[in-house]
Amino acid sequence: MAIVTLTTDFGTADGYVGVMKGVLLSRAPQARLVDLSHAIPPQDVRRAAILLQAAFPFFPPGTVHLAVVDPGVGTLRRPLALQVETSFCVGPDNGLFSYLLAEAESWSAVELTSPAHRLPHVSHTFHGRDIFSPAAAHLAAGGPLAALGPAVDDPVRLPLPRLDITDGQIEGEVLYADRFGNLITSIGRLFWEGEHLSLAPAFRPVREPLARFPAATAQVEIAGQRIDGVHLTYGLLPPGRLLAVVGSEGFLEVAVCQGDAAASLGVRPGDAVTLSLGPPRSLQTRR
Amino acid sequence: MAIVTLTTDFGTADGYVGVMKGVLLSRAPQARLVDLSHAIPPQDVRRAAILLQAAFPFFPPGTVHLAVVDPGVGTLRRPLALQVETSFCVGPDNGLFSYLLAEAESWSAVELTSPAHRLPHVSHTFHGRDIFSPAAAHLAAGGPLAALGPAVDDPVRLPLPRLDITDGQIEGEVLYADRFGNLITSIGRLFWEGEHLSLAPAFRPVREPLARFPAATAQVEIAGQRIDGVHLTYGLLPPGRLLAVVGSEGFLEVAVCQGDAAASLGVRPGDAVTLSLGPPRSLQTRR
Amino acid sequence: MAIVTLTTDFGTADGYVGVMKGVLLSRAPQARLVDLSHAIPPQDVRRAAILLQAAFPFFPPGTVHLAVVDPGVGTLRRPLALQVETSFCVGPDNGLFSYLLAEAESWSAVELTSPAHRLPHVSHTFHGRDIFSPAAAHLAAGGPLAALGPAVDDPVRLPLPRLDITDGQIEGEVLYADRFGNLITSIGRLFWEGEHLSLAPAFRPVREPLARFPAATAQVEIAGQRIDGVHLTYGLLPPGRLLAVVGSEGFLEVAVCQGDAAASLGVRPGDAVTLSLGPPRSLQTRR
Repeated sequence: MAIVTLTTDFGTADGYVGVMKGVLLSRAPQARLVDLSHAIPPQDVRRAAILLQAAFPFFPPGTVHLAVVDPGVGTLRRPLALQVETSFCVGPDNGLFSYLLAEAESWSAVELTSPAHRLPHVSHTFHGRDIFSPAAAHLAAGGPLAALGPAVDDPVRLPLPRLDITDGQIEGEVLYADRFGNLITSIGRLFWEGEHLSLAPAFRPVREPLARFPAATAQVEIAGQRIDGVHLTYGLLPPGRLLAVVGSEGFLEVAVCQGDAAASLGVRPGDAVTLSLGPPRSLQTRR
Repeated sequence: MAIVTLTTDFGTADGYVGVMKGVLLSRAPQARLVDLSHAIPPQDVRRAAILLQAAFPFFPPGTVHLAVVDPGVGTLRRPLALQVETSFCVGPDNGLFSYLLAEAESWSAVELTSPAHRLPHVSHTFHGRDIFSPAAAHLAAGGPLAALGPAVDDPVRLPLPRLDITDGQIEGEVLYADRFGNLITSIGRLFWEGEHLSLAPAFRPVREPLARFPAATAQVEIAGQRIDGVHLTYGLLPPGRLLAVVGSEGFLEVAVCQGDAAASLGVRPGDAVTLSLGPPRSLQTRR
Repeated sequence: MAIVTLTTDFGTADGYVGVMKGVLLSRAPQARLVDLSHAIPPQDVRRAAILLQAAFPFFPPGTVHLAVVDPGVGTLRRPLALQVETSFCVGPDNGLFSYLLAEAESWSAVELTSPAHRLPHVSHTFHGRDIFSPAAAHLAAGGPLAALGPAVDDPVRLPLPRLDITDGQIEGEVLYADRFGNLITSIGRLFWEGEHLSLAPAFRPVREPLARFPAATAQVEIAGQRIDGVHLTYGLLPPGRLLAVVGSEGFLEVAVCQGDAAASLGVRPGDAVTLSLGPPRSLQTRR
């Protein structure tokens, strides 16, 4: 009884996602369907790639991640299915799976060309329904990857988010603002070790720590504001206070306690954020 | 293990849909629940009817389509269940199922009067929970339609969307704007035949083609703008370009490449759209 | 095959809810997942408590209600699981379950301390994923409450909504506006008895009626407006008309027929509403 997750920029108002589920359950009646998000900003492949990378580790082996953020639908971009470790991904070849692939120890991919694994009539504008859902259903029902089409060894990859480590300073970028207005940045992954933080690289299969520094004296600069220290969680400071925390995925987040940091700071994805590791302002390599 | 789809104007914030699912799973524990949309504009029966008609063909036999857009809740409007071909519909008798009925080869209907298939206490304001969900659960569990109440042979029908074919010209209307701002019109169903388009009537059980014309020389007029040609898909033109495509349901759509046509044009549902079949501006009947 | 309902203020855009479902299905593969709401206003514990209380009676025995509206995540607030009659609740100890507990005949609670029922790495910012979902999965899979941690006998309770009954008059407050702009108030629970209404106390396990009065001559005062009579349902008056009805949970609602009362009146949660029982303006106790 495999899980199929769905990630799209379709919204949930127009019924497109429901129709995909009709196709999925017609061909894989036992599949368990889980919505990851249908509110990816229209055609924002990168936001979907970040979300998929964050969700991937929390699903059991055999899960099929179906993602359709597809500005090139109907053009020559390839439709793909991938096996990534013991799970699967299905979607257009535009980088959607870049970031989870960057952390994967093994993967293989095929182009979806098999007519038997498409709807009989394939539209030019809704491959989520006509091509990707039938392929995902095939994998969810235990069908082999190779039946879907020929091997592909060069799926499109997005550039990795910015993470520059210089003497005593880490420069990154704002990845996105979540529903609470918390600003998730590319600075991570951070792990607590007592009152210190260690930094392991994100988006790489091996995670050797790169740095270790005291959380209390670190400083964050964003939108001309300076924030002192990195805190454990949101709830420990007075409402309205700007603070830096380590988010649930291990990335540095900037938040306003019981408020909206994105609105307060007027910050957008791609804007710079800097983490200074504090006096004696030198990068302390861990070993 | 029948599927029950849900379509409402309840939104998903207030818990109303969740409560309906509690009633459904209390009475049909094996049912698979699929949300089609809960963001139908409040009391917009027609929008729901269009959505249901589009989704209907993609669900397997035995599916129960539960729809509650119900401005007349608590008044004398009848609560209905229908068998449509091999599937079922449950909802208020206000035209919600008009458009899928218009394409159906067979149907029968009953009024929901059986007290055994309602909650013990029926409110005057939430028949989705008290009347429609128990009836849908009965059908999902394989119960007979006739057990729900007496036959009805005159369910309310909405007027069909505008589609006037005159010499060399097809006049229709904007049905709705989807999440991307694409304008879905009533001009369809269009099917590609090489570089030509053929037009089959929508909302009729028989689909004899009405016209055939070259896509490249057709012209669309909407909101005072003229668009040359009908394209295969969105992704082939530069961003910002206004274009006409054949949507995934076979209806003419007006889109802005990587943009929002509804906002750009200031168009609303019901506004006129005209498709000129191009020089020699004569309707070429197909045979 | 237990049901797990989910109620959060996470929204559905960021994938947080999807990740919780990945954890739930990893540990309770047979669980049926039902979203109650993920659009609770950020950190609005009271709104979630009202919604959970309304939904609770419509789910079958064994259902696990997982709720995460958690401004205190990562602080010393306790994580809890409760057995309430024959169902379960899991979430932070901040009053989320206050109102359903107020109506329950029996309950017991434990603090979630068992390391075996958490993810191996517990973040400071996402206990919904790391602590609450594993506990809910344990209960959904039939595991005993006591395995999760030590007993708690003093869960946090929110103050009950305002409901003051004086001579011939009931004073309450606006609880929230739903998607339609209908204003749900704390005046209830009201039940129709022919053309009379009887008032039973909400949020108490025993429901002895407190008053009985004719619906037609009652008057509602809200935001300086006077509304005559309490009606059966929304659909019986002309569009735009302000009216009072008994909502589906038995609470007095103020609505605009096919319109938005919250916007029209400019009313907010907590604002006062008064129900005058009408001439002879005396509270008629029922017996």
